[in-house]
Amino acid sequence: MSSTIELRPIGRVHAREADGASEIEVHEQFADGLEGVVDEECLWVLYWMHELGPEDRQILRAHPMGDRDRPKRGVFALHSPMRPNPIGMTRVKLLELQGNRLRVEGLDARDGSPVLDIKSG
Amino acid sequence: MSSTIELRPIGRVHAREADGASEIEVHEQFADGLEGVVDEECLWVLYWMHELGPEDRQILRAHPMGDRDRPKRGVFALHSPMRPNPIGMTRVKLLELQGNRLRVEGLDARDGSPVLDIKSG
Repeated sequence: MSSTIELRPIGRVHAREADGASEIEVHEQFADGLEGVVDEECLWVLYWMHELGPEDRQILRAHPMGDRDRPKRGVFALHSPMRPNPIGMTRVKLLELQGNRLRVEGLDARDGSPVLDIKSG
Repeated sequence: MSSTIELRPIGRVHAREADGASEIEVHEQFADGLEGVVDEECLWVLYWMHELGPEDRQILRAHPMGDRDRPKRGVFALHSPMRPNPIGMTRVKLLELQGNRLRVEGLDARDGSPVLDIKSG
């Protein structure tokens, strides 16, 4: 059995606003990693689906889109949040960068989700 | 400061073959998650860049494509492997599924990389 891997969140998602935009607050100690981000139109955001519990991480088959009329499939053939390592992955549009805060469009992460990584999109 | 997050690898990458294909071996206890994967043409693979050390995870600015003639940028504006949480993310073409082993094309992970997640592509 492989050993476990430890991640440190680099930031946090703040609730989606009325206009559908979200804010990513990058923790101060990682803010230097944002240099040049303003030139990017789109970014990939990896985040942790923190609302899932240990039992959700044991689910290996789920209904597509949570639709019980559709037969279950393996989670590796789906985008279901239930999976052994619940890492969300979304391509977002960068609207604005202010200091260590990014306003983005299209992020489907829940409020408070720890952000694991941001990559050029 | 946010608390750390623990991941368990769900599989492992086997060295790229002469034809450019790689193999992903999914650990037996996660094999049920592969049901239906065979219907997918492309998959996203998240893997851990295990060859990077703790000091690489402290680097927040790097030369684009490792090219020293280009000025450094923040790692969140790059695809550099150096980043606080070195998670690789690649879209691959599924060539074949045999039991718990997937042959895929286009995976840029090093031999032995722990696989963190597979998602419908």
